[in-house]
Amino acid sequence: MSDLEQVIEELIRFRNERDWEQFHNSKDLAIAISIEANELLEQFLWKKEEGADRERIKEELADVFLFGLLLVHKHGFDLKEILLEKIRINAEKYPVSKSKGSAKKYDQL
Amino acid sequence: MSDLEQVIEELIRFRNERDWEQFHNSKDLAIAISIEANELLEQFLWKKEEGADRERIKEELADVFLFGLLLVHKHGFDLKEILLEKIRINAEKYPVSKSKGSAKKYDQL
Amino acid sequence: MSDLEQVIEELIRFRNERDWEQFHNSKDLAIAISIEANELLEQFLWKKEEGADRERIKEELADVFLFGLLLVHKHGFDLKEILLEKIRINAEKYPVSKSKGSAKKYDQL
Amino acid sequence: MSDLEQVIEELIRFRNERDWEQFHNSKDLAIAISIEANELLEQFLWKKEEGADRERIKEELADVFLFGLLLVHKHGFDLKEILLEKIRINAEKYPVSKSKGSAKKYDQL
Repeated sequence: MSDLEQVIEELIRFRNERDWEQFHNSKDLAIAISIEANELLEQFLWKKEEGADRERIKEELADVFLFGLLLVHKHGFDLKEILLEKIRINAEKYPVSKSKGSAKKYDQL
Repeated sequence: MSDLEQVIEELIRFRNERDWEQFHNSKDLAIAISIEANELLEQFLWKKEEGADRERIKEELADVFLFGLLLVHKHGFDLKEILLEKIRINAEKYPVSKSKGSAKKYDQL
Repeated sequence: MSDLEQVIEELIRFRNERDWEQFHNSKDLAIAISIEANELLEQFLWKKEEGADRERIKEELADVFLFGLLLVHKHGFDLKEILLEKIRINAEKYPVSKSKGSAKKYDQL
Repeated sequence: MSDLEQVIEELIRFRNERDWEQFHNSKDLAIAISIEANELLEQFLWKKEEGADRERIKEELADVFLFGLLLVHKHGFDLKEILLEKIRINAEKYPVSKSKGSAKKYDQL
Protein backbone atom coordinates (compact mmCIF):
# COMPACT_ATOMS: atom_id res chain seq x y z
CA MET A 1 0.00 0.00 0.00
CA SER A 2 1.40 3.35 -0.98
CA ASP A 3 1.95 6.17 1.51
CA LEU A 4 -1.04 8.14 0.32
CA GLU A 5 -3.32 5.13 0.38
CA GLN A 6 -2.46 4.81 4.04
CA VAL A 7 -3.34 8.49 4.61
CA ILE A 8 -6.64 8.05 2.77
CA GLU A 9 -7.42 4.98 4.85
CA GLU A 10 -6.85 6.96 8.08
CA LEU A 11 -8.88 9.86 6.71
CA ILE A 12 -11.86 7.69 5.78
CA ARG A 13 -11.77 6.07 9.21
CA PHE A 14 -11.75 9.56 10.80
CA ARG A 15 -14.72 10.56 8.59
CA ASN A 16 -16.73 7.40 9.18
CA GLU A 17 -16.31 7.47 12.96
CA ARG A 18 -18.03 10.89 12.84
CA ASP A 19 -20.66 9.85 10.30
CA TRP A 20 -19.66 12.76 8.06
CA GLU A 21 -19.92 11.15 4.64
CA GLN A 22 -23.50 12.50 4.46
CA PHE A 23 -22.10 16.08 4.25
CA HIS A 24 -19.28 15.35 1.80
CA ASN A 25 -20.85 15.97 -1.58
CA SER A 26 -18.42 17.12 -4.31
CA LYS A 27 -19.58 20.75 -4.32
CA ASP A 28 -19.12 21.23 -0.57
CA LEU A 29 -15.75 19.46 -0.69
CA ALA A 30 -14.67 21.95 -3.37
CA ILE A 31 -15.92 24.79 -1.16
CA ALA A 32 -13.95 23.35 1.76
CA ILE A 33 -10.77 23.22 -0.34
CA SER A 34 -11.15 26.92 -1.20
CA ILE A 35 -11.79 27.84 2.45
CA GLU A 36 -8.75 25.90 3.63
CA ALA A 37 -6.62 27.40 0.85
CA ASN A 38 -7.59 30.82 2.15
CA GLU A 39 -6.76 29.90 5.74
CA LEU A 40 -3.35 28.97 4.38
CA LEU A 41 -3.19 32.24 2.45
CA GLU A 42 -4.12 34.19 5.57
CA GLN A 43 -0.79 33.14 7.11
CA PHE A 44 0.89 35.37 4.51
CA LEU A 45 -1.43 38.38 4.70
CA TRP A 46 0.41 41.69 5.23
CA LYS A 47 3.68 39.73 5.36
CA LYS A 48 6.76 39.33 3.25
CA GLU A 49 7.10 36.44 0.81
CA GLU A 50 8.62 34.06 3.36
CA GLY A 51 7.17 35.76 6.44
CA ALA A 52 4.65 33.13 7.50
CA ASP A 53 5.05 30.75 10.42
CA ARG A 54 6.27 27.31 9.32
CA GLU A 55 4.06 25.39 11.74
CA ARG A 56 0.93 27.23 10.61
CA ILE A 57 1.80 26.69 6.93
CA LYS A 58 2.17 22.99 7.68
CA GLU A 59 -1.23 22.69 9.37
CA GLU A 60 -3.22 24.75 6.90
CA LEU A 61 -1.58 23.17 3.87
CA ALA A 62 -2.38 19.75 5.34
CA ASP A 63 -6.08 20.67 5.50
CA VAL A 64 -6.05 21.63 1.81
CA PHE A 65 -4.57 18.22 0.98
CA LEU A 66 -6.98 16.34 3.25
CA PHE A 67 -10.10 17.80 1.63
CA GLY A 68 -8.43 17.29 -1.75
CA LEU A 69 -7.91 13.62 -0.92
CA LEU A 70 -11.56 13.25 0.08
CA LEU A 71 -12.53 14.51 -3.37
CA VAL A 72 -9.96 12.21 -5.02
CA HIS A 73 -11.36 9.27 -3.06
CA LYS A 74 -15.00 10.18 -3.80
CA HIS A 75 -14.36 10.14 -7.54
CA GLY A 76 -12.04 7.14 -7.48
CA PHE A 77 -9.21 9.08 -9.13
CA ASP A 78 -5.71 7.61 -9.25
CA LEU A 79 -3.87 10.60 -7.78
CA LYS A 80 -0.45 9.79 -9.20
CA GLU A 81 -1.94 9.32 -12.65
CA ILE A 82 -3.96 12.54 -12.67
CA LEU A 83 -0.99 14.57 -11.42
CA LEU A 84 1.42 13.17 -14.02
CA GLU A 85 -1.23 13.72 -16.70
CA LYS A 86 -1.74 17.33 -15.62
CA ILE A 87 2.01 17.99 -15.71
CA ARG A 88 1.94 16.76 -19.33
CA ILE A 89 -1.00 19.05 -20.15
CA ASN A 90 0.72 22.02 -18.51
CA ALA A 91 3.91 21.23 -20.41
CA GLU A 92 2.00 21.58 -23.67
CA LYS A 93 0.31 24.80 -22.57
CA TYR A 94 3.66 26.22 -21.54
CA PRO A 95 6.30 25.20 -24.12
CA VAL A 96 9.82 25.77 -22.79
CA SER A 97 10.69 27.92 -25.79
CA LYS A 98 7.96 30.45 -24.99
CA SER A 99 7.69 30.29 -21.24
CA LYS A 100 11.28 30.01 -20.04
CA GLY A 101 11.92 32.66 -17.41
CA SER A 102 8.48 34.18 -17.97
CA ALA A 103 5.60 34.31 -15.47
CA LYS A 104 3.04 35.09 -18.15
CA LYS A 105 -0.15 33.07 -18.38
CA TYR A 106 -0.36 30.64 -21.30
CA ASP A 107 -2.96 32.73 -23.15
CA GLN A 108 -0.58 35.71 -23.15
CA LEU A 109 2.57 33.93 -24.27
CA MET B 1 10.86 6.03 -4.28
CA SER B 2 7.23 6.59 -3.34
CA ASP B 3 4.58 7.55 -5.88
CA LEU B 4 4.46 11.13 -4.71
CA GLU B 5 8.21 11.50 -4.76
CA GLN B 6 8.07 10.54 -8.42
CA VAL B 7 5.40 13.18 -9.06
CA ILE B 8 7.46 15.81 -7.23
CA GLU B 9 10.52 14.85 -9.28
CA GLU B 10 8.58 15.33 -12.54
CA LEU B 11 7.14 18.59 -11.24
CA ILE B 12 10.53 20.01 -10.29
CA ARG B 13 11.91 19.02 -13.70
CA PHE B 14 8.94 20.81 -15.36
CA ARG B 15 9.61 23.88 -13.19
CA ASN B 16 13.37 23.93 -13.72
CA GLU B 17 13.13 23.54 -17.52
CA ARG B 18 11.11 26.77 -17.46
CA ASP B 19 13.35 28.53 -14.93
CA TRP B 20 10.33 29.27 -12.75
CA GLU B 21 11.80 28.70 -9.30
CA GLN B 22 12.53 32.45 -9.18
CA PHE B 23 8.75 33.15 -9.05
CA HIS B 24 7.85 30.41 -6.56
CA ASN B 25 8.13 32.15 -3.20
CA SER B 26 5.85 30.73 -0.50
CA LYS B 27 3.37 33.62 -0.57
CA ASP B 28 2.76 33.40 -4.31
CA LEU B 29 2.49 29.60 -4.13
CA ALA B 30 -0.24 30.05 -1.48
CA ILE B 31 -1.96 32.56 -3.78
CA ALA B 32 -1.72 30.06 -6.65
CA ILE B 33 -3.31 27.32 -4.51
CA SER B 34 -6.26 29.61 -3.73
CA ILE B 35 -6.68 30.56 -7.40
CA GLU B 36 -6.61 26.92 -8.52
CA ALA B 37 -9.03 25.97 -5.73
CA ASN B 38 -11.41 28.56 -7.13
CA GLU B 39 -11.02 27.28 -10.68
CA LEU B 40 -12.04 23.91 -9.26
CA LEU B 41 -14.93 25.54 -7.39
CA GLU B 42 -16.07 27.29 -10.55
CA GLN B 43 -16.91 23.88 -12.03
CA PHE B 44 -19.72 23.65 -9.46
CA LEU B 45 -21.05 27.22 -9.75
CA TRP B 46 -24.84 27.37 -10.32
CA LYS B 47 -24.89 23.55 -10.37
CA LYS B 48 -26.18 20.77 -8.17
CA GLU B 49 -23.93 19.01 -5.69
CA GLU B 50 -22.68 16.41 -8.17
CA GLY B 51 -23.32 18.46 -11.33
CA ALA B 52 -19.77 19.21 -12.37
CA ASP B 53 -17.92 17.57 -15.24
CA ARG B 54 -15.65 14.75 -14.04
CA GLU B 55 -12.81 15.58 -16.45
CA ARG B 56 -12.75 19.23 -15.39
CA ILE B 57 -12.79 18.28 -11.70
CA LYS B 58 -9.81 16.03 -12.38
CA GLU B 59 -7.77 18.74 -14.09
CA GLU B 60 -8.51 21.56 -11.69
CA LEU B 61 -8.05 19.39 -8.61
CA ALA B 62 -4.70 18.25 -10.01
CA ASP B 63 -3.55 21.88 -10.24
CA VAL B 64 -4.43 22.44 -6.58
CA PHE B 65 -2.31 19.40 -5.66
CA LEU B 66 0.59 20.43 -7.91
CA PHE B 67 0.97 23.89 -6.35
CA GLY B 68 0.48 22.27 -2.95
CA LEU B 69 3.34 19.87 -3.70
CA LEU B 70 5.58 22.78 -4.73
CA LEU B 71 4.97 24.34 -1.31
CA VAL B 72 5.58 20.97 0.40
CA HIS B 73 8.83 20.60 -1.51
CA LYS B 74 9.94 24.17 -0.82
CA HIS B 75 9.62 23.69 2.93
CA GLY B 76 10.95 20.14 2.95
CA PHE B 77 7.80 18.77 4.59
CA ASP B 78 7.22 15.02 4.76
CA LEU B 79 3.74 14.99 3.25
CA LYS B 80 2.62 11.68 4.71
CA GLU B 81 3.75 12.77 8.15
CA ILE B 82 2.07 16.18 8.10
CA LEU B 83 -1.19 14.69 6.86
CA LEU B 84 -1.29 11.95 9.50
CA GLU B 85 -0.39 14.54 12.15
CA LYS B 86 -3.20 16.85 11.00
CA ILE B 87 -5.73 14.01 11.11
CA ARG B 88 -4.67 13.47 14.74
CA ILE B 89 -5.09 17.20 15.52
CA ASN B 90 -8.51 17.28 13.84
CA ALA B 91 -9.53 14.16 15.79
CA GLU B 92 -8.85 16.04 19.02
CA LYS B 93 -10.70 19.14 17.84
CA TYR B 94 -13.66 17.01 16.83
CA PRO B 95 -14.19 14.28 19.46
CA VAL B 96 -16.50 11.55 18.17
CA SER B 97 -18.84 11.98 21.15
CA LYS B 98 -19.55 15.62 20.28
CA SER B 99 -19.23 15.70 16.50
CA LYS B 100 -20.88 12.46 15.35
CA GLY B 101 -23.45 13.27 12.68
CA SER B 102 -22.91 17.01 13.16
CA ALA B 103 -21.51 19.48 10.63
CA LYS B 104 -20.85 22.14 13.27
CA LYS B 105 -17.44 23.79 13.51
CA TYR B 106 -15.31 22.75 16.49
CA ASP B 107 -15.75 26.11 18.24
CA GLN B 108 -19.53 25.65 18.20
CA LEU B 109 -19.70 22.04 19.39
CA MET C 1 -32.05 57.60 -5.44
CA SER C 2 -28.49 56.99 -4.27
CA ASP C 3 -25.69 56.02 -6.63
CA LEU C 4 -25.63 52.43 -5.48
CA GLU C 5 -29.38 52.07 -5.76
CA GLN C 6 -29.00 53.07 -9.39
CA VAL C 7 -26.31 50.42 -9.91
CA ILE C 8 -28.48 47.77 -8.22
CA GLU C 9 -31.42 48.76 -10.45
CA GLU C 10 -29.26 48.31 -13.58
CA LEU C 11 -27.92 45.03 -12.23
CA ILE C 12 -31.36 43.60 -11.49
CA ARG C 13 -32.52 44.63 -14.97
CA PHE C 14 -29.46 42.83 -16.47
CA ARG C 15 -30.26 39.74 -14.38
CA ASN C 16 -33.99 39.71 -15.14
CA GLU C 17 -33.52 40.14 -18.88
CA ARG C 18 -31.51 36.88 -18.76
CA ASP C 19 -33.90 35.10 -16.38
CA TRP C 20 -31.02 34.36 -14.03
CA GLU C 21 -32.69 34.89 -10.66
CA GLN C 22 -33.41 31.14 -10.60
CA PHE C 23 -29.66 30.45 -10.25
CA HIS C 24 -28.92 33.15 -7.68
CA ASN C 25 -29.40 31.40 -4.36
CA SER C 26 -27.28 32.79 -1.51
CA LYS C 27 -24.80 29.91 -1.45
CA ASP C 28 -23.96 30.16 -5.15
CA LEU C 29 -23.71 33.94 -4.92
CA ALA C 30 -21.16 33.48 -2.12
CA ILE C 31 -19.28 30.99 -4.32
CA ALA C 32 -19.35 33.52 -7.17
CA ILE C 33 -17.89 36.23 -4.92
CA SER C 34 -15.00 33.94 -3.98
CA ILE C 35 -14.35 33.00 -7.63
CA GLU C 36 -14.35 36.66 -8.72
CA ALA C 37 -12.12 37.60 -5.78
CA ASN C 38 -9.65 35.01 -7.04
CA GLU C 39 -9.81 36.32 -10.61
CA LEU C 40 -8.88 39.67 -9.10
CA LEU C 41 -6.13 38.03 -7.06
CA GLU C 42 -4.78 36.30 -10.17
CA GLN C 43 -3.86 39.72 -11.56
CA PHE C 44 -1.21 39.92 -8.82
CA LEU C 45 0.13 36.37 -9.06
CA TRP C 46 3.96 36.22 -9.41
CA LYS C 47 4.01 40.04 -9.42
CA LYS C 48 5.16 42.80 -7.13
CA GLU C 49 2.76 44.53 -4.77
CA GLU C 50 1.66 47.15 -7.30
CA GLY C 51 2.49 45.13 -10.44
CA ALA C 52 -1.01 44.39 -11.69
CA ASP C 53 -2.66 46.06 -14.65
CA ARG C 54 -5.00 48.87 -13.57
CA GLU C 55 -7.67 48.05 -16.16
CA ARG C 56 -7.80 44.39 -15.14
CA ILE C 57 -8.00 45.31 -11.44
CA LYS C 58 -10.92 47.58 -12.29
CA GLU C 59 -12.85 44.88 -14.14
CA GLU C 60 -12.26 42.03 -11.72
CA LEU C 61 -12.91 44.19 -8.67
CA ALA C 62 -16.16 45.35 -10.26
CA ASP C 63 -17.30 41.71 -10.58
CA VAL C 64 -16.65 41.13 -6.88
CA PHE C 65 -18.83 44.16 -6.07
CA LEU C 66 -21.57 43.15 -8.51
CA PHE C 67 -22.05 39.68 -7.00
CA GLY C 68 -21.78 41.28 -3.56
CA LEU C 69 -24.59 43.67 -4.47
CA LEU C 70 -26.76 40.79 -5.65
CA LEU C 71 -26.37 39.20 -2.22
CA VAL C 72 -27.06 42.56 -0.52
CA HIS C 73 -30.20 42.95 -2.63
CA LYS C 74 -31.36 39.37 -2.02
CA HIS C 75 -31.25 39.82 1.74
CA GLY C 76 -32.59 43.37 1.71
CA PHE C 77 -29.53 44.73 3.54
CA ASP C 78 -28.98 48.47 3.80
CA LEU C 79 -25.40 48.51 2.51
CA LYS C 80 -24.37 51.82 4.05
CA GLU C 81 -25.73 50.70 7.41
CA ILE C 82 -24.04 47.28 7.43
CA LEU C 83 -20.70 48.79 6.41
CA LEU C 84 -20.77 51.51 9.07
CA GLU C 85 -21.84 48.89 11.64
CA LYS C 86 -18.95 46.59 10.64
CA ILE C 87 -16.43 49.44 10.92
CA ARG C 88 -17.70 49.94 14.50
CA ILE C 89 -17.34 46.21 15.26
CA ASN C 90 -13.82 46.15 13.79
CA ALA C 91 -12.92 49.25 15.82
CA GLU C 92 -13.80 47.34 18.99
CA LYS C 93 -11.88 44.23 17.90
CA TYR C 94 -8.86 46.39 17.08
CA PRO C 95 -8.50 49.09 19.77
CA VAL C 96 -6.11 51.82 18.64
CA SER C 97 -3.96 51.37 21.74
CA LYS C 98 -3.19 47.74 20.89
CA SER C 99 -3.28 47.69 17.10
CA LYS C 100 -1.59 50.93 16.08
CA GLY C 101 1.14 50.14 13.57
CA SER C 102 0.60 46.39 13.99
CA ALA C 103 -0.65 43.94 11.35
CA LYS C 104 -1.48 41.28 13.95
CA LYS C 105 -4.90 39.63 13.94
CA TYR C 106 -7.21 40.64 16.81
CA ASP C 107 -6.87 37.28 18.57
CA GLN C 108 -3.09 37.73 18.75
CA LEU C 109 -3.00 41.34 19.97
CA MET D 1 -21.46 63.54 -0.44
CA SER D 2 -22.81 60.19 -1.50
CA ASP D 3 -23.50 57.36 0.94
CA LEU D 4 -20.45 55.38 -0.08
CA GLU D 5 -18.18 58.38 0.13
CA GLN D 6 -19.26 58.69 3.74
CA VAL D 7 -18.42 55.01 4.34
CA ILE D 8 -15.02 55.44 2.70
CA GLU D 9 -14.36 58.51 4.86
CA GLU D 10 -15.12 56.51 8.03
CA LEU D 11 -13.03 53.61 6.75
CA ILE D 12 -10.00 55.78 6.03
CA ARG D 13 -10.30 57.39 9.47
CA PHE D 14 -10.41 53.87 11.02
CA ARG D 15 -7.31 52.88 9.00
CA ASN D 16 -5.35 56.04 9.72
CA GLU D 17 -6.00 55.93 13.47
CA ARG D 18 -4.28 52.52 13.42
CA ASP D 19 -1.49 53.57 11.04
CA TRP D 20 -2.36 50.67 8.74
CA GLU D 21 -1.87 52.31 5.35
CA GLN D 22 1.70 50.96 5.37
CA PHE D 23 0.32 47.40 5.05
CA HIS D 24 -2.34 48.13 2.44
CA ASN D 25 -0.57 47.55 -0.85
CA SER D 26 -2.82 46.43 -3.72
CA LYS D 27 -1.67 42.80 -3.69
CA ASP D 28 -2.36 42.29 0.02
CA LEU D 29 -5.71 44.06 -0.29
CA ALA D 30 -6.63 41.59 -3.05
CA ILE D 31 -5.51 38.73 -0.78
CA ALA D 32 -7.66 40.17 2.02
CA ILE D 33 -10.70 40.31 -0.27
CA SER D 34 -10.26 36.61 -1.13
CA ILE D 35 -9.85 35.66 2.53
CA GLU D 36 -12.97 37.60 3.55
CA ALA D 37 -14.91 36.12 0.62
CA ASN D 38 -14.02 32.69 1.96
CA GLU D 39 -15.07 33.58 5.50
CA LEU D 40 -18.40 34.52 3.94
CA LEU D 41 -18.43 31.27 1.97
CA GLU D 42 -17.70 29.29 5.14
CA GLN D 43 -21.11 30.33 6.47
CA PHE D 44 -22.63 28.13 3.76
CA LEU D 45 -20.33 25.11 4.07
CA TRP D 46 -22.20 21.79 4.46
CA LYS D 47 -25.47 23.76 4.41
CA LYS D 48 -28.43 24.17 2.11
CA GLU D 49 -28.61 27.07 -0.31
CA GLU D 50 -30.29 29.44 2.15
CA GLY D 51 -29.04 27.73 5.31
CA ALA D 52 -26.58 30.34 6.54
CA ASP D 53 -27.16 32.69 9.46
CA ARG D 54 -28.31 36.13 8.29
CA GLU D 55 -26.25 38.04 10.87
CA ARG D 56 -23.06 36.21 9.91
CA ILE D 57 -23.70 36.77 6.20
CA LYS D 58 -24.10 40.47 6.94
CA GLU D 59 -20.82 40.75 8.85
CA GLU D 60 -18.67 38.70 6.49
CA LEU D 61 -20.14 40.32 3.38
CA ALA D 62 -19.43 43.73 4.92
CA ASP D 63 -15.75 42.80 5.29
CA VAL D 64 -15.55 41.86 1.61
CA PHE D 65 -16.97 45.29 0.71
CA LEU D 66 -14.70 47.15 3.14
CA PHE D 67 -11.49 45.71 1.70
CA GLY D 68 -12.96 46.24 -1.77
CA LEU D 69 -13.53 49.91 -0.94
CA LEU D 70 -9.94 50.26 0.28
CA LEU D 71 -8.76 49.02 -3.11
CA VAL D 72 -11.23 51.34 -4.90
CA HIS D 73 -9.94 54.26 -2.83
CA LYS D 74 -6.28 53.35 -3.36
CA HIS D 75 -6.67 53.42 -7.13
CA GLY D 76 -9.00 56.41 -7.19
CA PHE D 77 -11.72 54.50 -9.03
CA ASP D 78 -15.20 55.98 -9.35
CA LEU D 79 -17.13 52.99 -8.01
CA LYS D 80 -20.46 53.82 -9.63
CA GLU D 81 -18.75 54.31 -12.97
CA ILE D 82 -16.73 51.07 -12.91
CA LEU D 83 -19.79 49.05 -11.87
CA LEU D 84 -22.03 50.47 -14.60
CA GLU D 85 -19.21 49.94 -17.11
CA LYS D 86 -18.78 46.31 -16.04
CA ILE D 87 -22.52 45.65 -16.35
CA ARG D 88 -22.23 46.93 -19.94
CA ILE D 89 -19.25 44.64 -20.63
CA ASN D 90 -21.06 41.64 -19.13
CA ALA D 91 -24.14 42.45 -21.20
CA GLU D 92 -22.00 42.13 -24.34
CA LYS D 93 -20.41 38.89 -23.16
CA TYR D 94 -23.83 37.47 -22.36
CA PRO D 95 -26.29 38.51 -25.10
CA VAL D 96 -29.89 37.96 -23.99
CA SER D 97 -30.58 35.82 -27.05
CA LYS D 98 -27.89 33.28 -26.11
CA SER D 99 -27.86 33.41 -22.34
CA LYS D 100 -31.52 33.68 -21.36
CA GLY D 101 -32.31 31.00 -18.80
CA SER D 102 -28.84 29.49 -19.16
CA ALA D 103 -26.13 29.33 -16.48
CA LYS D 104 -23.39 28.57 -19.01
CA LYS D 105 -20.20 30.60 -19.03
CA TYR D 106 -19.80 33.03 -21.91
CA ASP D 107 -17.09 30.94 -23.61
CA GLN D 108 -19.46 27.97 -23.76
CA LEU D 109 -22.55 29.77 -25.06
